[in-house]
Amino acid sequence: MENLSTLLGKYGDEGDKLLFKILNSGNFMEGVSITDSSQLSANNIGPKITEKGLRYDLTVPFARFVVQNRDKISFPFRRYQIQPVWRADRPQKGRYREFYQCDADIIASDSLVNEVELIEMIDEVFAKLNMRVAIKFNNRKILTAIAELVGEADKIIDITVAIDKLDKTSLTEVNAELESKGLSQEAIAQLQPIILLDGNNKDKIAQLKYIIGQIPTGEKGIEEIETILNYLNKVTLNANLELDLTLARGLNYYTGTIIEVKALDVPIGSVSGGGRYDDLTGIFGLKGVSGVGVSFGADRIYDVLDTLNLFSQHSASTTKILFVAFDQKGIEYALPILRMLRKDGIAAEIYPSPTKMKKQMQYANDKKIPFVAIVGDDEIEKQGVMLKDMTTGNQKLVMSHKLKDSL
Amino acid sequence: MENLSTLLGKYGDEGDKLLFKILNSGNFMEGVSITDSSQLSANNIGPKITEKGLRYDLTVPFARFVVQNRDKISFPFRRYQIQPVWRADRPQKGRYREFYQCDADIIASDSLVNEVELIEMIDEVFAKLNMRVAIKFNNRKILTAIAELVGEADKIIDITVAIDKLDKTSLTEVNAELESKGLSQEAIAQLQPIILLDGNNKDKIAQLKYIIGQIPTGEKGIEEIETILNYLNKVTLNANLELDLTLARGLNYYTGTIIEVKALDVPIGSVSGGGRYDDLTGIFGLKGVSGVGVSFGADRIYDVLDTLNLFSQHSASTTKILFVAFDQKGIEYALPILRMLRKDGIAAEIYPSPTKMKKQMQYANDKKIPFVAIVGDDEIEKQGVMLKDMTTGNQKLVMSHKLKDSL
Repeated sequence: MENLSTLLGKYGDEGDKLLFKILNSGNFMEGVSITDSSQLSANNIGPKITEKGLRYDLTVPFARFVVQNRDKISFPFRRYQIQPVWRADRPQKGRYREFYQCDADIIASDSLVNEVELIEMIDEVFAKLNMRVAIKFNNRKILTAIAELVGEADKIIDITVAIDKLDKTSLTEVNAELESKGLSQEAIAQLQPIILLDGNNKDKIAQLKYIIGQIPTGEKGIEEIETILNYLNKVTLNANLELDLTLARGLNYYTGTIIEVKALDVPIGSVSGGGRYDDLTGIFGLKGVSGVGVSFGADRIYDVLDTLNLFSQHSASTTKILFVAFDQKGIEYALPILRMLRKDGIAAEIYPSPTKMKKQMQYANDKKIPFVAIVGDDEIEKQGVMLKDMTTGNQKLVMSHKLKDSL
Repeated sequence: MENLSTLLGKYGDEGDKLLFKILNSGNFMEGVSITDSSQLSANNIGPKITEKGLRYDLTVPFARFVVQNRDKISFPFRRYQIQPVWRADRPQKGRYREFYQCDADIIASDSLVNEVELIEMIDEVFAKLNMRVAIKFNNRKILTAIAELVGEADKIIDITVAIDKLDKTSLTEVNAELESKGLSQEAIAQLQPIILLDGNNKDKIAQLKYIIGQIPTGEKGIEEIETILNYLNKVTLNANLELDLTLARGLNYYTGTIIEVKALDVPIGSVSGGGRYDDLTGIFGLKGVSGVGVSFGADRIYDVLDTLNLFSQHSASTTKILFVAFDQKGIEYALPILRMLRKDGIAAEIYPSPTKMKKQMQYANDKKIPFVAIVGDDEIEKQGVMLKDMTTGNQKLVMSHKLKDSL
């Protein structure tokens, strides 16, 4: 949890509404007085009875941490952080009230090498998970330049939302939506080349140079994009990296690169995202420090892997061998062998009660445990176990001290 | 978070007070009406504006989970869980409002083999951490029998708290405290052999048999303790396992074995604890299912390791090699080598900007990075890097593709 003062105002009005607030402890109504019942409103009472809130993301608490610990940190500072965050949203598939974010940030370095490394990291993570994704990126400076170009600086979100619909509707409808948002005909005309921007990253950049290359912010944004792509030419990415001008992301604090990752095979929103924030620590009193970071949404990634059956058979059971005994003597015999195997890094367990063999074997089956070590009087006498391979059904007597080599 | 109905009443009155409650979202005062300001109390308003709370521990939410998923689970069910929990307590050294618990439980098995395995696990964890601990254990049935013996069933906590003070005060003072808590002279007289119980586990058990062996609950408790110790005779523990009758633990739901682990070298309260709960899932509608579990307090363990300087030098830096470049060309040259090393499992990073050498070396020093790969024009031409061993100060040219073998 964080002080509400740390969280409020960092995620836009919508973000403020989605913060979970914690009721003050003890007699929280102490000091709350009202003169008439119209003061019994959430707006009036709320601030008096709550001072703390649950983390909305990990980036803002991280900025708070960096400022508080600036004297102990070696900059540039890289950290990863895996923690739950909360949003007071209506839960649905792919949208949770409590979910885990996995963040990686580099703070106090404005080098675009950081963006490159983060994109490489995203690429490698999803390659390792065997999950097909598209990595989309954009730059806030490009968006600022476009808004400047059409003279509608405050409408940049409306513009990107409308443009984003082009692959689902027609150009006529996109233009109608822009008009309905209050854009002038002249502005809409100027936007046409941007709405129709197409081709690969190189083509798009060439067109962007033509459209907004004369606007200083636009020129800077294009230069940043080119630098990143140039570095990435030196390595091979598994995923497609696509410049997407409709990418705006809701978070208020981004100032440069914006990154968003979409799963290609499951419609679930973005599974990772991030960007550069030039002055996030400024709010907490440390000015002129630029940072950049990305966040993986662990729960959505889990959902995608689960939907696509990408969790291997192997991960369904982590236990390699189950000991099956029929009396206390058998359990006593098995315990030191069990410990020996565990010391060797082999995940082993014992069925905790000496119940019927059928029940114990059923448990091994249900948990997909590949080996069972049966411990009867015969085996104890011979200082071994009857090792059963649950896949083939074969079984043989194995000496206890050689058990490890038979698995 | 959990529904408050899941959490309330599970941890005793004190526990209820320590629950963090979450303010309902939106216009939470809607539907709250009062006729006079005396109704503006926390007790009256609280239940109307909050329905959810933060986890107080992981055991109760786990019981809720097991009941909700009973059709999908193979029993006996073993699980570990690492998550933050919250207590609305006054924070101080070793006591946090938000801290991580690491739990392991076995549910739907009343076999004492589970207790044995958990004690072995505790022992191994602290041995691996090089942290000296005492593992104390007791059995709620013993405490029940003692209370029965002295005819003061409701005073068992007062009794154990008083007995616990014997090593700090005198017998006279302990008896005075018992009297002040309302125990009769007769009851206090009957307690004397228990207060003075001494010796090793075997001695204590022999004396307990004499004192409460005739009470059925006492007999059962002693039998459980003996069974556990008998199994543990088959393996060697690193830590001392000590039967401690003053161990009561605050949590209401324990019914059999109680375990608590104390750090021997830092006074910080218990660093791990747990026990058996015979009917925790009963509250959620699944009766007759016994479970047992332990929890490690990650933050306190961190504090102990930190105080005793038990974090190795190694863990202060996870990066093995830092690339140092002086221009964009150098960075472009280094990036693919960096990726190659990472693919081989070597933690490598690059200083993100081509700044002054001194500054980059300072960063390597501050972060205790053992190797630096310097990339100048010469090295690029020769397809290598100048590898500097930061411990010895020695440096030599190493071919890029052989870098891995030089670390």
